[in-house]
Amino acid sequence: MEQAIEKRIGITSLRSKVATPEEAAAFIQNGDIVGMSGFTRAGDAKVVPLALAERAKNNDLKIDVYTGASLGPEVDQILAQAGGIRKRAPYQGDPVIRNLINTGEILYVDAHLSHNAELVRQGIIGPIDYAIIEATAITEDGYLVPTTSVGNSPIYAKYAKNIIVELNLAHSESFIGVHDIFIPEDQGNRKPLPILNAADRIGDIGIKIDPEKVKAIVISNEQDAPSLIVDPDEETQVMANYLLDFLRSEIKAGRLTNKLAPIQSGVGSVANAVLEGFKDSEFEDLLIFSEVLQDAVFNLIDAGKVSFASCTSITISEELQKKVYGNLEKYADKILLRPQEISNHPEVIRRLGLIAINAALEVDIYGNVNSTHVGGTKMMNGIGGSGDFTRNSRLSIFVTKSYAKGGKLSSIVPMVAHHDHTEHDVHVIVTEQGVADLRGLAPKERVPLIIENCVHPEFKQQLWDYYNEAVELTGNAHTPHNLEKALSWHVNAMKTGSMKI
Amino acid sequence: MEQAIEKRIGITSLRSKVATPEEAAAFIQNGDIVGMSGFTRAGDAKVVPLALAERAKNNDLKIDVYTGASLGPEVDQILAQAGGIRKRAPYQGDPVIRNLINTGEILYVDAHLSHNAELVRQGIIGPIDYAIIEATAITEDGYLVPTTSVGNSPIYAKYAKNIIVELNLAHSESFIGVHDIFIPEDQGNRKPLPILNAADRIGDIGIKIDPEKVKAIVISNEQDAPSLIVDPDEETQVMANYLLDFLRSEIKAGRLTNKLAPIQSGVGSVANAVLEGFKDSEFEDLLIFSEVLQDAVFNLIDAGKVSFASCTSITISEELQKKVYGNLEKYADKILLRPQEISNHPEVIRRLGLIAINAALEVDIYGNVNSTHVGGTKMMNGIGGSGDFTRNSRLSIFVTKSYAKGGKLSSIVPMVAHHDHTEHDVHVIVTEQGVADLRGLAPKERVPLIIENCVHPEFKQQLWDYYNEAVELTGNAHTPHNLEKALSWHVNAMKTGSMKI
Repeated sequence: MEQAIEKRIGITSLRSKVATPEEAAAFIQNGDIVGMSGFTRAGDAKVVPLALAERAKNNDLKIDVYTGASLGPEVDQILAQAGGIRKRAPYQGDPVIRNLINTGEILYVDAHLSHNAELVRQGIIGPIDYAIIEATAITEDGYLVPTTSVGNSPIYAKYAKNIIVELNLAHSESFIGVHDIFIPEDQGNRKPLPILNAADRIGDIGIKIDPEKVKAIVISNEQDAPSLIVDPDEETQVMANYLLDFLRSEIKAGRLTNKLAPIQSGVGSVANAVLEGFKDSEFEDLLIFSEVLQDAVFNLIDAGKVSFASCTSITISEELQKKVYGNLEKYADKILLRPQEISNHPEVIRRLGLIAINAALEVDIYGNVNSTHVGGTKMMNGIGGSGDFTRNSRLSIFVTKSYAKGGKLSSIVPMVAHHDHTEHDVHVIVTEQGVADLRGLAPKERVPLIIENCVHPEFKQQLWDYYNEAVELTGNAHTPHNLEKALSWHVNAMKTGSMKI
Repeated sequence: MEQAIEKRIGITSLRSKVATPEEAAAFIQNGDIVGMSGFTRAGDAKVVPLALAERAKNNDLKIDVYTGASLGPEVDQILAQAGGIRKRAPYQGDPVIRNLINTGEILYVDAHLSHNAELVRQGIIGPIDYAIIEATAITEDGYLVPTTSVGNSPIYAKYAKNIIVELNLAHSESFIGVHDIFIPEDQGNRKPLPILNAADRIGDIGIKIDPEKVKAIVISNEQDAPSLIVDPDEETQVMANYLLDFLRSEIKAGRLTNKLAPIQSGVGSVANAVLEGFKDSEFEDLLIFSEVLQDAVFNLIDAGKVSFASCTSITISEELQKKVYGNLEKYADKILLRPQEISNHPEVIRRLGLIAINAALEVDIYGNVNSTHVGGTKMMNGIGGSGDFTRNSRLSIFVTKSYAKGGKLSSIVPMVAHHDHTEHDVHVIVTEQGVADLRGLAPKERVPLIIENCVHPEFKQQLWDYYNEAVELTGNAHTPHNLEKALSWHVNAMKTGSMKI
């Protein structure tokens, strides 16, 4: 055995478990329930899934795949395309698996990311036959040290009957000590989570495993599939400026200081671009308490704007991977990776009073948000952690461009065609047109703010026409709607490609 | 001054503040923001609001009224009808105020009940000019002891510029010691809430007030408006049995013991009737951690089934009022009233792993729930605490009869016309037809369970027809819908009074 490998398997008895991807994959049975590491393409197993995909192509192997969040191409493209996945939860975001979900070939359960561990604990997800977990190392005292994400790995490792480890040599041993692994007690015997600040450590450097459960250790050596975010553009810069101005007005109102409050920022290009906007701002000493650290966070650390960032996953571009993973020592005392049930825990989110910034697919005139479905039927990505954060934060902000498809679609509609976040949960909407602060407002007070501040000029009058007709029709009811036309914009879009009447 | 009154005003300097309702009401200015005690008709101020209503009739006094939840007729009928309310939050349930909300005469903000205190803290609600709080007594050391509810009184008393106390002599001094008043620190400086069990006390017996802020103490002497729940009927009994059988299956699966987990039960006749069903069950040593204690809880305490009940409000029938308030000593060590931000706090709900049982107005084939709007436009009651509990409980159960209006309407529809709880949050649906356990299921797995187990036979085929057409139309997408027909059942109901095609 190479010394580099031996060094990373601290439990001597486990060194004999080193196996090829094919040998490891052979343990998995058709119909098995498998819990995998990985969260938004980071820290996922990379070589065993390819061997599983080969088996799927040949033997009709089909398994249920539970993860942290979306995985890289090995699972969410190749294994999915090979017909190897029966059911998938709790998050995905790849066009290949999305297409299979929307043609009925894969069942997908779109769940809040903080809830997954509770479902495992209760046996609703399970019994888990295998956990497949990417690791940096197994320490002498029996800790499995994750790589670039923690996700649900701790709970899968605890409840799975068997464990397969992918030891990824591409990651520096500097990762040891960056994670903070804590598994809450069962409900009913649970104690408060002692996190009082974003940087608080409450657990171990790795996942305590029962060595008896480890069936195979497979060696790999490759970086995560890099993130797919696109660079900020002129409009996201405008949105960022609107958001910063809104935060300035909160400071002026005495609700925040210029250190703000710990920030959560959702996955994707728009949320990342908006966060980039903080770089040239007067805000300082910022804390991040989020799910995923994207490029912007490391750029803000470099710029001296962010003093600490807590997350469950690091999902960055190829350029940033080189910079961050090549100099992890530089960032190691400024970041921390937690299990996703902790990073997204309502208890901590509410206590810390986060500022949550998430992307919306569409918003309606009353402030309901659709994060997941195109045309109310086709799954895009899942809800992810947006509900965990939105529901419990001090400020729940949604960002979206006011239009899509070159202006043919409006992102603000009479009624969203799928509801992920209700009018009760959405505080602030930001588009490139402006900001609507909905806090403390009745539905009919929200309408003029949303239409006048956030809607693209091309659709303003059309929305006013819808609303005015609905007010008339319902005798000025609490939430005026014309149910015969409430979803007609989506119907038009389906039929003509445009929401314009 | 009568001795009975003197005895209840422990701070000597405040005894000179005793005033008539009219004198107290005269402090309030047109346009004031007023925070009132009271939660689901319990513990609300009863005589000052009538004096305010007189002023509204004469002088055009209009105020913003923030409360715990719904109030008795003095505010939500008489003051509302007199034109004295501009804006109302966070909950109401009276037909009179509801009608004024649905004709645009009163603005209503329908908010999660646990969020209200945060909005006060942040100044989104406020500045509060007056808090009007019903009390049992003011103790020598400056604690205002509430009566039959706590609601938002602590946060209103803390942030209001002025306080008016209604000292209600109808309530026995045995109420002193029944409450547990705790106000969390501001977000960012907040510590864990040390509640590990439903019965844990973490605060004071009353609301610590600044005596300088007390402008008037008005004496009253009447019980709360009794609750309006109707007795269990044959169908609610059937629903209760289905629920109990479901809980038995959870025990069998090893997820619960026959002590279950702390139970939350929503407001209203159906939830109360379902809870009554526990009386003749084998379950024992039950704990209640809820918002409102209705008749059923006291019947269960009497039956030896419930060992402790924590709440923020006691809302009971006239018969039970006599029994409970006439013998409060008997119940005093088995109940506890907390502020609603604690009774409904996500941190505690998640930690204790509650079983939440709430009533739905309608449910759709994918498990989305409408709790608030008739026909998607007209406000019924507010969302109340159902979101606080649903979103964080171990088990989120919704109960509804499968039909309404003598069978003309189905409570299960293709798409709910207003979304209060999304598919991500609803675990179990119970109707008089049966139970659908949606946990861990993809949307298309939920449909047959909901239709076959929960829908009234009169509507089953019609729902299947809708679904099958939607599957065809969308190419078996993740969430099949025909947006042209998704709300057509509601449109038909509006036009013909029936959802039948």
